[in-house]
Amino acid sequence: MSETTSKKVYLFADGKADGNGKMKDTLGGKGAGLAEMTLASLPVPPGFTITTDCCNLYYNSGKQFPEGLWEEVLTAMQAVEAATGKGFGNQENPLLVSVRSGAKFSMPGMMDTVLNLGLNDDTVAGLAALTSNDRFAQDAYRRFIQMFGRIVLGVSGEKFDHAFDSAKKAKGVTQDTDLDAADLRAIVAQFKELVATETGQAFPTDPYDQLKLAIVAVFSSWFGKRAIDYRRINKIPDDLGTAVNVVAMVFGNMGTDSGTGVAFTRNPSTGEGILFGEYLTNAQGEDVVAGIRTPFKIAHLKEEMPEVYDQFAKVAQLLEKHYKDVQDLEFTIERGKLWMLQTRNAKRTGPAAVKIAVDMANEGIISKQEAVNRVEPAQLDQLLHPMIDPQAEIDLLATGLPASPGAATGKVVFDPDTAEERGQAGEKVILVRVETSPEDFHGMVAAQAILTARGGMTSHAAVVARGMGKCCVAGCSALEIDYQTKEIRIGDRVIKESEAITLDGTTGRVIAGEVPLIKPEISGEFKEFMSWVDEYRKLGVRTNADTPHDSRVAREFGAEGIGLCRTEHMFFEGNRIDMVRQMIMVSAEYKRLEADRSVLHQEIAKETAKSGGKSERLDSLKEQLAQYDEKIAKPKQLFMGALAALLPMQREDFIGIFQAMDGFPVTIRLLDPPLHEFLPHDDETINDLAGKVGLTVKEIENKIEALRESNPMLGHRGCRLGLVYPEITEMQARAIFEAAAHVQQAGVKVFPEVMIPLVADVKELQRQEHIVRRVANEVMDQTHVQIEYLVGTMIELPRAALTADKIARVAEFFSFGTNDLTQTTFGLSRDDAGTFLPFYVENKILPDDPFQVLDQEGVGQLVEIGIQKGRSARAGLKVGICGEHGGEPQSVHFCHRVGMNYVSCSPYRVPIARLAAAQAALAEASGDGQSAAARTA
Amino acid sequence: MSETTSKKVYLFADGKADGNGKMKDTLGGKGAGLAEMTLASLPVPPGFTITTDCCNLYYNSGKQFPEGLWEEVLTAMQAVEAATGKGFGNQENPLLVSVRSGAKFSMPGMMDTVLNLGLNDDTVAGLAALTSNDRFAQDAYRRFIQMFGRIVLGVSGEKFDHAFDSAKKAKGVTQDTDLDAADLRAIVAQFKELVATETGQAFPTDPYDQLKLAIVAVFSSWFGKRAIDYRRINKIPDDLGTAVNVVAMVFGNMGTDSGTGVAFTRNPSTGEGILFGEYLTNAQGEDVVAGIRTPFKIAHLKEEMPEVYDQFAKVAQLLEKHYKDVQDLEFTIERGKLWMLQTRNAKRTGPAAVKIAVDMANEGIISKQEAVNRVEPAQLDQLLHPMIDPQAEIDLLATGLPASPGAATGKVVFDPDTAEERGQAGEKVILVRVETSPEDFHGMVAAQAILTARGGMTSHAAVVARGMGKCCVAGCSALEIDYQTKEIRIGDRVIKESEAITLDGTTGRVIAGEVPLIKPEISGEFKEFMSWVDEYRKLGVRTNADTPHDSRVAREFGAEGIGLCRTEHMFFEGNRIDMVRQMIMVSAEYKRLEADRSVLHQEIAKETAKSGGKSERLDSLKEQLAQYDEKIAKPKQLFMGALAALLPMQREDFIGIFQAMDGFPVTIRLLDPPLHEFLPHDDETINDLAGKVGLTVKEIENKIEALRESNPMLGHRGCRLGLVYPEITEMQARAIFEAAAHVQQAGVKVFPEVMIPLVADVKELQRQEHIVRRVANEVMDQTHVQIEYLVGTMIELPRAALTADKIARVAEFFSFGTNDLTQTTFGLSRDDAGTFLPFYVENKILPDDPFQVLDQEGVGQLVEIGIQKGRSARAGLKVGICGEHGGEPQSVHFCHRVGMNYVSCSPYRVPIARLAAAQAALAEASGDGQSAAARTA
Repeated sequence: MSETTSKKVYLFADGKADGNGKMKDTLGGKGAGLAEMTLASLPVPPGFTITTDCCNLYYNSGKQFPEGLWEEVLTAMQAVEAATGKGFGNQENPLLVSVRSGAKFSMPGMMDTVLNLGLNDDTVAGLAALTSNDRFAQDAYRRFIQMFGRIVLGVSGEKFDHAFDSAKKAKGVTQDTDLDAADLRAIVAQFKELVATETGQAFPTDPYDQLKLAIVAVFSSWFGKRAIDYRRINKIPDDLGTAVNVVAMVFGNMGTDSGTGVAFTRNPSTGEGILFGEYLTNAQGEDVVAGIRTPFKIAHLKEEMPEVYDQFAKVAQLLEKHYKDVQDLEFTIERGKLWMLQTRNAKRTGPAAVKIAVDMANEGIISKQEAVNRVEPAQLDQLLHPMIDPQAEIDLLATGLPASPGAATGKVVFDPDTAEERGQAGEKVILVRVETSPEDFHGMVAAQAILTARGGMTSHAAVVARGMGKCCVAGCSALEIDYQTKEIRIGDRVIKESEAITLDGTTGRVIAGEVPLIKPEISGEFKEFMSWVDEYRKLGVRTNADTPHDSRVAREFGAEGIGLCRTEHMFFEGNRIDMVRQMIMVSAEYKRLEADRSVLHQEIAKETAKSGGKSERLDSLKEQLAQYDEKIAKPKQLFMGALAALLPMQREDFIGIFQAMDGFPVTIRLLDPPLHEFLPHDDETINDLAGKVGLTVKEIENKIEALRESNPMLGHRGCRLGLVYPEITEMQARAIFEAAAHVQQAGVKVFPEVMIPLVADVKELQRQEHIVRRVANEVMDQTHVQIEYLVGTMIELPRAALTADKIARVAEFFSFGTNDLTQTTFGLSRDDAGTFLPFYVENKILPDDPFQVLDQEGVGQLVEIGIQKGRSARAGLKVGICGEHGGEPQSVHFCHRVGMNYVSCSPYRVPIARLAAAQAALAEASGDGQSAAARTA
Repeated sequence: MSETTSKKVYLFADGKADGNGKMKDTLGGKGAGLAEMTLASLPVPPGFTITTDCCNLYYNSGKQFPEGLWEEVLTAMQAVEAATGKGFGNQENPLLVSVRSGAKFSMPGMMDTVLNLGLNDDTVAGLAALTSNDRFAQDAYRRFIQMFGRIVLGVSGEKFDHAFDSAKKAKGVTQDTDLDAADLRAIVAQFKELVATETGQAFPTDPYDQLKLAIVAVFSSWFGKRAIDYRRINKIPDDLGTAVNVVAMVFGNMGTDSGTGVAFTRNPSTGEGILFGEYLTNAQGEDVVAGIRTPFKIAHLKEEMPEVYDQFAKVAQLLEKHYKDVQDLEFTIERGKLWMLQTRNAKRTGPAAVKIAVDMANEGIISKQEAVNRVEPAQLDQLLHPMIDPQAEIDLLATGLPASPGAATGKVVFDPDTAEERGQAGEKVILVRVETSPEDFHGMVAAQAILTARGGMTSHAAVVARGMGKCCVAGCSALEIDYQTKEIRIGDRVIKESEAITLDGTTGRVIAGEVPLIKPEISGEFKEFMSWVDEYRKLGVRTNADTPHDSRVAREFGAEGIGLCRTEHMFFEGNRIDMVRQMIMVSAEYKRLEADRSVLHQEIAKETAKSGGKSERLDSLKEQLAQYDEKIAKPKQLFMGALAALLPMQREDFIGIFQAMDGFPVTIRLLDPPLHEFLPHDDETINDLAGKVGLTVKEIENKIEALRESNPMLGHRGCRLGLVYPEITEMQARAIFEAAAHVQQAGVKVFPEVMIPLVADVKELQRQEHIVRRVANEVMDQTHVQIEYLVGTMIELPRAALTADKIARVAEFFSFGTNDLTQTTFGLSRDDAGTFLPFYVENKILPDDPFQVLDQEGVGQLVEIGIQKGRSARAGLKVGICGEHGGEPQSVHFCHRVGMNYVSCSPYRVPIARLAAAQAALAEASGDGQSAAARTA
C-alpha cells in the first residue's frame, strides 16, 4: 500500500464514521467497534482511529513517524473539537482525550493506555472551572503526568509512587482521598520536576506534543516484551500491528450522577439471556477493575438511574442484534449522560456458548448453521467434565500436558495396587506414576485422575484416561517421582503420599491441595445443539472403545460404530494374563524348534537324495528328528493350550461389544503391542509365573531379557506378530467370527471389520487376510450364519501410505493410524518427546504438538498420498482415521477435506468430533476453508 | 503363447540345431549350450530339448501332457536315430538316451536325471552284443531300472539298495564289481519284481513309454521340495519352468579308451590362463563327482590320449572365444571319441574374476567395458579380506548375519577389557557380546573379530567392524551368551571362554575351532581393473570415516572425500568421555534453571507492569531470581567448562582428518546419538563419575534413569540436541572451522561440509545453520583465513523427504541417511529386527533385508521425492547417500539412476561401490537398466 495515498486516520463523530465494524484489520477490534457503534447512532464520544498500517509503517521505516499521518491527525482533531464543542488546549473549555491501542485481536492487559491527555497548567484550570471541582481537576492532572511519565516517557513508576508516598507521609495521612487540591497541586509540581530530572527535558505542555508522543508510545508497545510474549502464547502474528484510538474523554467520576461499568448482553458463564455486569458511581473505568470499591450489579442501575438504564438496555439489545452475538460492553455515565466506550463479541464458557447459540437461533437472530459455527468444538469438553471453579484460589505446583480434560481432586498414591485398594474403599485417590503401562490399568480405573512425569499426549496414560473420560495430566517433567520414599519433588517442594492435590486435565495444571470443582450438566440446549450439528456434518464419527461399557458411553455421545477396538487391553483382564504369559514364555522356543525341525526335514530330504537313502549321516539326522519331535511336544502343548484357553474369553469380549454396537460397524484391530509388554517386571509376579509354567526364575528372567527391545515401537509388534505366530491371528479371528455368529443368531446386527495393524508391505497383509478369511469361512460353515465383514488395514507407516495402491488391492478399508504415522514420519517417539517437544512448540519450531494437532504438511501429505493411491486401486475405498487426531477439531477439518469417510476418537471426544465435522462441512459449503475451529487455532 | 502353434521341441544334431545359445529362457541353460555347441560343429551327441513352456503348460493345465508335444518328440527321435544310425528300441543297434532337466539358471544337484533310457530285455542284449560286454550291459540295465524306478516311478531307493545288498550277501561278496553278468541279470529280474510289487504295474518295457514317463518326471521335479527350496534360497522365480533334454547316450565306461571328466578353460580359483580340470578313464560322469576313485588332472590326458587332449583343448579354446567367457565343461570319451556334454560360464572366486576379466580384455577377447561388467562387485570383498580355505573341513555351530566380510580365528572372550588386555598381549581373541555399544570400542579394536547375538546389519557392532575392515558376525540369535558363566550355549553345545572359534563374516558362519584362512593379496590386475572402473563411473565415491587412520585407508581404496564423519565416536576416546559425562550430568539442570529463570524474568516484567513496579509479590519474585542466579552458577560453569575442554580435542580430530583428506570434501555430521548413550552403566564407572562431578551415586543413577528413553532411536537426538543445547553445536562448529583454518594455513586444501542430522522441519535446520554460519564468520574474522564450506543436512526422516523443497532453501547439500530412513519408513528398528526379519526374507515377504539392500519401492520413493523436491527449490543441489546402502551394488545402481552426485560407504566397501557405480553407468550407456550387479541379485 502506498504510504502517501492510503487513508491513515478514520474519524467517528456525530453518527458518522469513516470506517465500520468490518474493518478490524485496519482499525483493530476497538476502533472498528467504535466506528460501527457511531454509525448505529449510539452515544459514542467522538474520536478517531489511526490505522494498523501506520504501526507497520512506523516499524518498517526504522521507527519514523509515518509521513502524512500528522496532518490527518490534526484534521481529525478539528472534527472532534467541532463535535464536542471543546478545544484541544483551550483554557476555558479544554478537550481532553484518551489514547489507546487496539489490535485486531483483543490482547487484554497487554497494551498501555493514556487518559486525560491534553492537560497542562492552563487547561487544568479550565477543567476545574468547568467541573467546579478543583480537586478533581488536580487529581486528573496528577494521574495524567504519572501515566504519561511512565508509559510514554519511560520514567520508573516506583519513583512516582515514592514521591506520592512521601507527600502523604509529610502530611501525616495514608489515604489518597485525604489529600486536597493544594496537596495535589504540589505533587503535580514534584512530578513535573521528577520527569525533568529523569528525562533531562521538561514535561511537555503542548497538548499536540503530548498527543504525538503518546501515539508513538502505542506503536512502541506493539513490540514490548509483554505484547510479544502474549502473541507467542496466543499464536498471533507479529506483523498485524496495532491501531491507535484517540477518543474525547468522558468522566464517570464527576459526581453521583456519573459512573462507569462493564456489562454483557447475556450471562457469559451460563448463557442466561439477561443483562449481566456491574458498575460504580462516581468512578473511572480502572476503579471497577481494581476492585477497591465493591461495584453494584447492573440491575441496580435500574433503581439508581432508570432512564439511563433503559437507554443502556436498549443500546445493548441493539448491539447484540447488530452484531448477532453476545456483546461485552464498556460504558461511562457523565452527569447523567450515557456514553458507550467499547463493544466486542463476548468470551463465554462452553455451556454458555451452547445455550447462547441455541437461544439466538431460536430467537431468529442467527441461523442454525451460524449457531453451529458459534461454538468452538473444544468448548464442549466443559459440558462433559468437571472443571475447576474459576473463582478458586490455586497453589500451582507445575504444569504438564493437558492429556485428558476435566478436573479432579484426590490423595496422592504411587502404585496401582494401593490405588485400587483405597479407591475401592471409597477414597478419592490420584494415581501418580513416572509413566503408566498396561499393568497399571486396574489402578487407573480406581483413581479419580492420573498424573505422570513422562509421556506425551498419546502416551498410555493419556490414551487410556481419555478413553475412560478421566482427567489426566501427563509428561509433567518438573516432577521428580520417587517410588522408594513415596514422594513427589518439584524443585524444593515435596508432596508426600496421601497429601491432596488437584489436577486440571484441560490445562495441564497440577495444584496443591483440594480445590472446589464445578460438575458438568447435560442441558436440553446441548441435545438440541448436537441434533443441529448432525444435520450438517458429512463425516461419520466413530469411537475408539475396547469394552462394552466404553461402547455404550460412546453411543450415548453419538458414536456411529467403533473405529478402533484394541484387543490387547482384553489380554490383561483377570487371570487371562497368566495364559498370555504362558503363551509368550514358550513361544520363542516353540518357533525355534519348529524352524529347526523344518531345517532337519530339508536336510534329511537332501541327504536321502544324495546318499540314495542310506548313510550314517542320514541315520543321525533321523535320530535328531525324533528328539525334536519329543522336545517340541511340551512347548507346543503349552502354546496351543494357552491360545485355546484365551479363545472363549476373547469371544465373550467381542459378544459384549457387538451387542453394545448393535447395528453399527466394529473395527477390531488384531494384537498390536510387542509381546514383552505383557510380561511381569516385579519379582513376586515372576516367581508366581515360574511356578505356573514350570520354569525357573532364572529362565523366566532370561526370556524376559531375550524379548527386551531397544526400540519396541519399531520392534516385533503389529502384524509382525501375526506373521511369526499365525496361531494368534487364527485364535483372534475365530473369537471374532464365533462372537459375530452368536450375536447375529440372537438378532443383533453385526458388521465386524477386521483390521491388520502395522502393515508395511502388501504381502504381510495378504498372509494375514488369508488366515482371517479362512477362519471366517470355517466359522460360517460350522454355524450356518452368514456374516457381513471386511478385512482392512491400518495405514500407520510411511511405507504403507507410499505403497497404498498395492495394499488397497487386498484391503477393503484403510484406517489411518496417525499416532504411529506421526511417530515414524517425524522419527519422534511420543513417549520420549516430552524432553524437547514443549521447547519446540514454545519456540515456534513446530506450530503445534503433532501428536495433538495433525501435521498436515508432512504427515498429512502421506495421508493424502495414501488415500489417492488407495482409491486409485479400489474406487470407493472406505477410509477413516483412528489416531488421537480423530477427536481434534483442526485435524477433523483436514479429514473432511481429504475425503475420509469417518473419524474415530475416544468416547468423550465424540461430540467434539461431530461438531468439528459439521463446521468443516459448513465451511466447505460456504466456500470458506476456515471455520470457527480452524480460526481458533 | 498359443499352445498349438509354438514350437515345443528343438533338435540338435550333426552340426545343425533349431535353437541357439541365446535361447536360455526357452531351452534352459543346458539346452541352449548343447544347441550352440552343435552349431559350432563341436562333437555333441545328437538330441533335442523340450521347451520350458511345456513345463509351464503341464502345470497350468493341471498336469496334462501338453497337446502336440508327443508328436514333436517322435519326429525328433527319428532325427536322432538318423544321426546316430541307431534305433530307439532296436534290438540289434539300440539307441539309448539320457533325460535331464535344464532350467534357465543352473540348479546343481536339484533336478534328477535318468540315464540309459531305452533299455529293456531285448535292447540289453543288443547293447551286450554291440559292446561285446554282457556285464556292462546288464549293469547298465540294472542301474537304469534302479534310477527310473526311484525317480520316475517313486519306488523307495532303500528298497533297491536292500535287494542289491541281499544279492551280494547271498553270494558272499561285498563289492559291486564282484557281481558277474549272471548275478546282475538276476538282480534285474528282482528289481523288476520290486517295481511291480511297489507300483502295482509291470516295469515299462516300451522305450517310448519310458521316455514319456521320464519327461513327465522331469516336469514334476520342478515342483519337488528340493527344487522349491533351492529356488527360494537363490531367489529364482517359480514360473520359469524347466526344459527337458533328451540326448543320445555316450559311454565313458567302455574300457580304457573311454573316460569322462569336467574342466574349466581357466583356473576358477586363481584365474590362471590354463586348462583346469580332472577326468577318470573307464568311468561314467557320476563316478567323477562321487570321488570313489581319485581322478587325474586334465594335463594327464595329454599323456594318455594326446589326440583327444588336443582336440579337447581346441574345443575349450573355441568355446571360450565363442562365449567370451571362461567355460565350465563336461565331456565323455567313448572309445577314443570326444563328446562334449555341457558348456556353461564358469563360477569363479573374486581374485579369479578380476584376473580373468583383465586378461581377457588384454587378450582382446572382450572390451574393457565388458571386463568391468564381468566382476560382481561383492566379489571384490574376497580381494580385501582373509577368507576361509574352501578346502577346510568345518564344524558349523550356527549362522548369523554376514555383518562385516572376511574371516578370523581366535579365542572367545566376553568383555572388552579382557579383549583389550589379551589382544594387546598378542593373543588372537574374538569378542563375543550379546550386542555392542560404544563402550566396547576398545575391545573391538583389540579383537580379531566380533560376534554378537543381537542386532542387524547396521547394528553398532556391524557398522564399527565394517569401518575397521574387521570380520563381524552379528545377530546370531541361536547363541545364548552367558556373561556370568562365561560361556556360549548353542542348543546342547557349550563354548567356554578361551576356546577357539572361527568366524566367516562373508557368509555369517560361526565355526568351532581353528580353521585355516587364506590371506588376501592385492594384485596388479586389481589395480588395472579398478583404473578401468574409474574410467566409466559417473557417481563419486566417498567414505564414512571418523579417524585419520580410516580416512587414509579409504583414500588408498580410492575414496574421493568423506561423506560421513561421525563426531560422536570422538567423544569416547581417552578421558574425553569424562568431560562429555560431566556435561551431560549437569545439562538438564542447567537448562531447567535457565528456563525457570526466563519464566521468572517474564513474571517480574508482568508484575512490574501490573503493580506499577511495587508489590509484595514483586519483591518475592526478585528474591527468587537472585536465588536462581546463584543456583545456576555451578551447573553453568560445569557445562560450559566441559565444552571448553572438549573444544581443543575435537579440533585436533578434525585437523587429522582434514590433513588425511587434503583436497577432498569432508562432510561432518554434528552430534547425533542421544546423550544417554555416553553414560556409564557399571557400578565402578558410576562411582568414579560421582567423584568427578561432585554428585552422589544415587543422584547419578537418578539422572541416568531420567535420561532413559523408551525408543531412543526416536528420541532426543540429532539436531534436537543442538536445538536444546545450542552450546554444543557452537563448540563443534568452532572446532571444525578452527581446524580448517589451521590446516589451510599449512597449505592443506580443505572443504568442510557441515551436516545437521535428523532434521524433520526446515526451522530446525535454519536455527542450527544460523549458529554454524555465525561461528564460521567469527573464526574467519579471527584467523583471517577464508574457508570454502557448505551447510547441509541429512535426509533421514520421511518428513524431511516430503518437505525437501523447503529444506533445500536452506541446505546446500542433502545426504540421504538411508539407515534411519529405512527404519522410519518401515517402522522397523534395525537393532530389533533380528527376531523376525530373517523370517520375512526367508518367506519372501520382503525380497531382501532392507538394511542391506535399499528398498526402492518404499524408501526409494521417498529418496526420489526428496531429490526432486530438493532440486526444484535449489537447482544443482548436491546429493549423496551415507547410509550403509552406499556400498551395496544394487543400491548404488539406484543412486546412479536417481541422479545422486555421490555415494559414501565404509572404507573397505569403497572398491565395491566404485565398481557398482561403473556398472551402473555402463548399463545406462547401453540403454540396459540391468548390469551384472543387478542381475546377480
